[in-house]
Amino acid sequence: MSKPPLRIGIVGYGFMGRAHSNAYRRVPNFFDVPYIPVLKAVCARNRARAEAFQQTWGYESVETDWRKLVDRKDIDVIDIASPNDTHAEVAIAAAQAGKAVLCEKPLGRNAAEAKVIVEAAEKAKTPNMVWYNYRRVPAVALAKELVNEGRLGRIFHYRARFLQDWTISKDLPQGGEGLWRLDVSVAGSGVTGDLLAHCIDTALWLNGPINSVAAITQTFIKERQHNLTGKVEKVGIDDACAFLAHFANSSQGTFEATRYARGHKALYTLEINGENASIIWDLHDLHRLQYFDHRDEGKLRGWRSIHITDSDHPYMKHWWVPGLQIGYEHTFVHQVADFLCGLASGNIPGPSFRDGLATDYVTDAVLAAARSGAWEKVAAS
Amino acid sequence: MSKPPLRIGIVGYGFMGRAHSNAYRRVPNFFDVPYIPVLKAVCARNRARAEAFQQTWGYESVETDWRKLVDRKDIDVIDIASPNDTHAEVAIAAAQAGKAVLCEKPLGRNAAEAKVIVEAAEKAKTPNMVWYNYRRVPAVALAKELVNEGRLGRIFHYRARFLQDWTISKDLPQGGEGLWRLDVSVAGSGVTGDLLAHCIDTALWLNGPINSVAAITQTFIKERQHNLTGKVEKVGIDDACAFLAHFANSSQGTFEATRYARGHKALYTLEINGENASIIWDLHDLHRLQYFDHRDEGKLRGWRSIHITDSDHPYMKHWWVPGLQIGYEHTFVHQVADFLCGLASGNIPGPSFRDGLATDYVTDAVLAAARSGAWEKVAAS
Amino acid sequence: MSKPPLRIGIVGYGFMGRAHSNAYRRVPNFFDVPYIPVLKAVCARNRARAEAFQQTWGYESVETDWRKLVDRKDIDVIDIASPNDTHAEVAIAAAQAGKAVLCEKPLGRNAAEAKVIVEAAEKAKTPNMVWYNYRRVPAVALAKELVNEGRLGRIFHYRARFLQDWTISKDLPQGGEGLWRLDVSVAGSGVTGDLLAHCIDTALWLNGPINSVAAITQTFIKERQHNLTGKVEKVGIDDACAFLAHFANSSQGTFEATRYARGHKALYTLEINGENASIIWDLHDLHRLQYFDHRDEGKLRGWRSIHITDSDHPYMKHWWVPGLQIGYEHTFVHQVADFLCGLASGNIPGPSFRDGLATDYVTDAVLAAARSGAWEKVAAS
Amino acid sequence: MSKPPLRIGIVGYGFMGRAHSNAYRRVPNFFDVPYIPVLKAVCARNRARAEAFQQTWGYESVETDWRKLVDRKDIDVIDIASPNDTHAEVAIAAAQAGKAVLCEKPLGRNAAEAKVIVEAAEKAKTPNMVWYNYRRVPAVALAKELVNEGRLGRIFHYRARFLQDWTISKDLPQGGEGLWRLDVSVAGSGVTGDLLAHCIDTALWLNGPINSVAAITQTFIKERQHNLTGKVEKVGIDDACAFLAHFANSSQGTFEATRYARGHKALYTLEINGENASIIWDLHDLHRLQYFDHRDEGKLRGWRSIHITDSDHPYMKHWWVPGLQIGYEHTFVHQVADFLCGLASGNIPGPSFRDGLATDYVTDAVLAAARSGAWEKVAAS
Repeated sequence: MSKPPLRIGIVGYGFMGRAHSNAYRRVPNFFDVPYIPVLKAVCARNRARAEAFQQTWGYESVETDWRKLVDRKDIDVIDIASPNDTHAEVAIAAAQAGKAVLCEKPLGRNAAEAKVIVEAAEKAKTPNMVWYNYRRVPAVALAKELVNEGRLGRIFHYRARFLQDWTISKDLPQGGEGLWRLDVSVAGSGVTGDLLAHCIDTALWLNGPINSVAAITQTFIKERQHNLTGKVEKVGIDDACAFLAHFANSSQGTFEATRYARGHKALYTLEINGENASIIWDLHDLHRLQYFDHRDEGKLRGWRSIHITDSDHPYMKHWWVPGLQIGYEHTFVHQVADFLCGLASGNIPGPSFRDGLATDYVTDAVLAAARSGAWEKVAAS
Repeated sequence: MSKPPLRIGIVGYGFMGRAHSNAYRRVPNFFDVPYIPVLKAVCARNRARAEAFQQTWGYESVETDWRKLVDRKDIDVIDIASPNDTHAEVAIAAAQAGKAVLCEKPLGRNAAEAKVIVEAAEKAKTPNMVWYNYRRVPAVALAKELVNEGRLGRIFHYRARFLQDWTISKDLPQGGEGLWRLDVSVAGSGVTGDLLAHCIDTALWLNGPINSVAAITQTFIKERQHNLTGKVEKVGIDDACAFLAHFANSSQGTFEATRYARGHKALYTLEINGENASIIWDLHDLHRLQYFDHRDEGKLRGWRSIHITDSDHPYMKHWWVPGLQIGYEHTFVHQVADFLCGLASGNIPGPSFRDGLATDYVTDAVLAAARSGAWEKVAAS
Repeated sequence: MSKPPLRIGIVGYGFMGRAHSNAYRRVPNFFDVPYIPVLKAVCARNRARAEAFQQTWGYESVETDWRKLVDRKDIDVIDIASPNDTHAEVAIAAAQAGKAVLCEKPLGRNAAEAKVIVEAAEKAKTPNMVWYNYRRVPAVALAKELVNEGRLGRIFHYRARFLQDWTISKDLPQGGEGLWRLDVSVAGSGVTGDLLAHCIDTALWLNGPINSVAAITQTFIKERQHNLTGKVEKVGIDDACAFLAHFANSSQGTFEATRYARGHKALYTLEINGENASIIWDLHDLHRLQYFDHRDEGKLRGWRSIHITDSDHPYMKHWWVPGLQIGYEHTFVHQVADFLCGLASGNIPGPSFRDGLATDYVTDAVLAAARSGAWEKVAAS
Repeated sequence: MSKPPLRIGIVGYGFMGRAHSNAYRRVPNFFDVPYIPVLKAVCARNRARAEAFQQTWGYESVETDWRKLVDRKDIDVIDIASPNDTHAEVAIAAAQAGKAVLCEKPLGRNAAEAKVIVEAAEKAKTPNMVWYNYRRVPAVALAKELVNEGRLGRIFHYRARFLQDWTISKDLPQGGEGLWRLDVSVAGSGVTGDLLAHCIDTALWLNGPINSVAAITQTFIKERQHNLTGKVEKVGIDDACAFLAHFANSSQGTFEATRYARGHKALYTLEINGENASIIWDLHDLHRLQYFDHRDEGKLRGWRSIHITDSDHPYMKHWWVPGLQIGYEHTFVHQVADFLCGLASGNIPGPSFRDGLATDYVTDAVLAAARSGAWEKVAAS
């Protein structure tokens, strides 16, 4: 007895378009999901590239106007994998058309934009999620389990960093294909919306709301050639950002992101220090979780490096055998699996659009604090 | 313009059946390969399970007799992912039927068996490969590049270990589904053919032939319930094996494998020490390579932990962006990609069946040395 | 021909009294120093404990009034290893008495106190140093060499943390022997003056002045029994502190210290990210330096773990052979060795009292910023 | 009330002479020992060097003939820190003179030589120890505690390696000051007696007797200039050695040592795999112990990296505070402390000369096995 299809229309063929498409194709091979994703259409303005993408991933058709995609009756889910400046209009129209919507992060270029998206989706009552994929790294999901089980006790500290080094060269242009993340009008912000947004989403999930923040931002390279205009233009994004945070649970947070940390490619690290136990995780070895439990016998206390490949670790029974690691792309497969199960049960798991808005409120406050030089309150989602 | 299909018939639906099937399905999404694998049929004696596997992986049909599979005209490649005792008869018949044959490792339960397979395949002149997948871990492939470039200088030492801990319990039975690796009549040997075979294949590839070996084997649990007979039976396999080796290049080798190393799940490690540089790799962090170069400036010499996620690392430009790791299953995708390119070029890459036989000659010598208590010469492949 | 003596009078017999005494005794065994330290007197109010210390370390005499110690003609150096609230009066009197003065860190409980010390010492023109011992970890000294050699290029980021977990228990009292670090009237501040002061001293040395800071502090346990009064009293110190910094070289700094990071005992870590190269160091493995150089060949770039035990590493030719690590206490031996050589050459190496004041200006600004919620400028030393 | 002196006469001023002298001087500063070591005399043929050593370390006198040293009535302990070919005659004479004897390892150049030493010492009933210092690394001592407490359960595997790279250059001469370890007539053997002896001593202590061995040795550089003769001479030592072992407890051992492992300076590693738990230790990070306990909760099992700096770790309460590591030289301090306490209690701790002989029986068997190509039985000590 075959499973019902879930028909996907994706907007965008870039890095995230690949990651999502792969997830749709892999999920039925590894998870007993209630729906089978069917790749109905890829939509992008550049028809030639969209067709190449269609060919590679096996989409049934191509659209070059996202409005047409949204109008198609044979599509159940609109997946927004295009640059940040497209999220709002596509997501709102898709919600209004009654589609489920999966949107890349950050939800909006700022909270105001995100708020309109949330309102549209909630009014339409359509299923929605944001692709904060790192929640579904098995090690991070295990961290969540440990927090939920109360193993850490009172939380004192939360730390997160996301360090990269790919924009150090002065000769790197901004704007256009592959480089829109440097163009503030498209991206909304620099590392704050791109990298810190990941750190914040995980932090809110693991450690609850942030009340207020103080911040510093910096743009190390002030001008870059713009790919679209051909001119040297002022760089509007933040190249680096660090912030201090008061969490509602009265723990203290420190966050930092940069694209100027030579030697680090995608070093997202997080640490939680509780009264009884602490946790460290690191994207460069995403299949491990460091865990310290003070309740261990004194002379044998130490940081445990847990190789997250056993069947009693989140998601791992679906993959291989103990000792054999999975990688980055699997986080998207997990998100699709959870989404499909949520669709069937009626209980769509997070991060919802409203969760995405919560992160945008924090990034807004961070950028405001960097400008004001003062502590800024975070609006409640 | 679409690419020609390559029609696959697979024997076996176990762990390896999944790994291979996944590889066939993923390869066209990530590699610009000259053929598109088409999953024509899965073959297994247990029809119900075969059908479940068919469903999960999208095979077009099911066979329950491998002879029928081999006879089918609509199949180009026979992929043998079934237990070791089936390799010879299926591989020989498939070769004689003019099929390309991809066979799981070890090629035979012993070299005598493997030799007949090689002769059949070479007589039939059909493409063949053995699934020694660890050659195609990007870090291991980089190690091969470094060796080929002569960066290490004269080689002094080669070390490899494969440590697991899954059979420590006395209550684990032997034989049957999932446990045939403990049944000597099916597996041929224990850790020697299972784990050391991997270590040996990589070693021969990286460091050339082994001339002679001295060895120790041990069976820690002497008797186990047999799943098929229901009786407690003598355990015929080696639970642990270590051996010393003289390589033809006059370097010295130490090898060890066990399923009784508490705390290690699949810890395949290898190290090469050369006059100028050394290399260490570890399957538990397969996306890293440790490299030490004595020609670095004195005060800055150190072991480099290379995060094998950059586009100038083998295979990695096909995947994600720097910093984002891949996992175990990708090694099989790489093997399929290389095989498909080799089919088109007429130059099938290794490990060939003959390479597989070379490994079996070493494992035979190791087991002989363990029995004789003396150094044993390795036969030439 | 024997070397001239340098006669030491030490104030304090605690943790630091031991570390300094050990340094004086070890230095002539390992370094060809121009003076031989002679342990003339230990001074402490508690005569019994002072005598026990004298016995253990071989001091010639005991004093119970530091004024008498300072007045003794047979003493060349006053070493202040007593709690923070004693630094100023002893240091000033010692300088006025024409003694060389070595003072534990922080120099003063605040910059105002430190400033008076500096002025007294500079007026008296007597040699002076502050025991910021971590500058003389060989790995940190190598980091300084690399910075001085310009290998890192333009600096973008400086990061430091000092994480401990020894005050988490609510039952730990404050004040008195061994616990004066929790008593704000004695210590001046909590982790800011204790732990961050170390981080700041190294940062100023490696990366130059800090212009301004924004900060957060927290006192997790608000009240503790006081050992001296026997009463439960308000805790006046900061249990945790984090701050953001603008360096004068336009790099950006993030700093954090706490005594509530479960699982970390003395985890002082620092990282510098430059245009060309980056450095990481960690007190828990103080004999290693992590180094990444972007100018390495692309496919072989990685973080080097340099085992700082070779004779071409700072200080290491004086100790053992490559591969054999030294420990924490050796940093004090190095400081004494450098001080003795500086005495002979007339060029006393840092950190001078003025350097100590510079750190106190930063800690003052940090505490002010935590109170004001705004960025605070750092006064120039 | 002052403690009685214990008067030391040392033979040799090399690397080990320094390590021992340092131990004698430091022990009363850190341990409440029943005797105070007094450095009475250093003995060496080269008077000028002996006097320089005397000066550096504060010995009271110099001897140039070890017989005179042994005859002196004012000396209680003869410490043999000279090359291997001197051990027997000095140790035997010293024992016959009624001295306590502390001898560097290996006890003899072979078991025959060691046996005579043992017999002399046992006949004379004088206290004796061999300087197998690694037993007293706190992490290794903790490993011993864990084994003794039965935490590991039945032992399956023991692994040890000692890897160095300091003799790779063809231009390194053999023989004479600092290079006698390459001269077989002085050293007795190469890495087997030098490095494997350490591994074996620890193994016998932790895991009990070895019954039989199979081995491989190699001399990579066949000829070297000899420092004493000035001629190019055949190299008689083993540059590398690996062996397999049957332990009496039916666990299986693998051992390896070399001076040709590029990138490793003094990488002594050991691992024990038991039914319930496993242990790994590494001299390059000697202040850590890796521990895996299968009885930990399933999803939280992992290798614990225990930072051996807490007061409940062996020897550590005598040093600094948690988080602050000690180094190589401290192992000798611990041995002296244990020896002094043993002298007072009458219960001298190991490794005794008889323990040293047990190790020499194993190294003899290893070298014999390498020659014979067969398994060789180990004689009982």
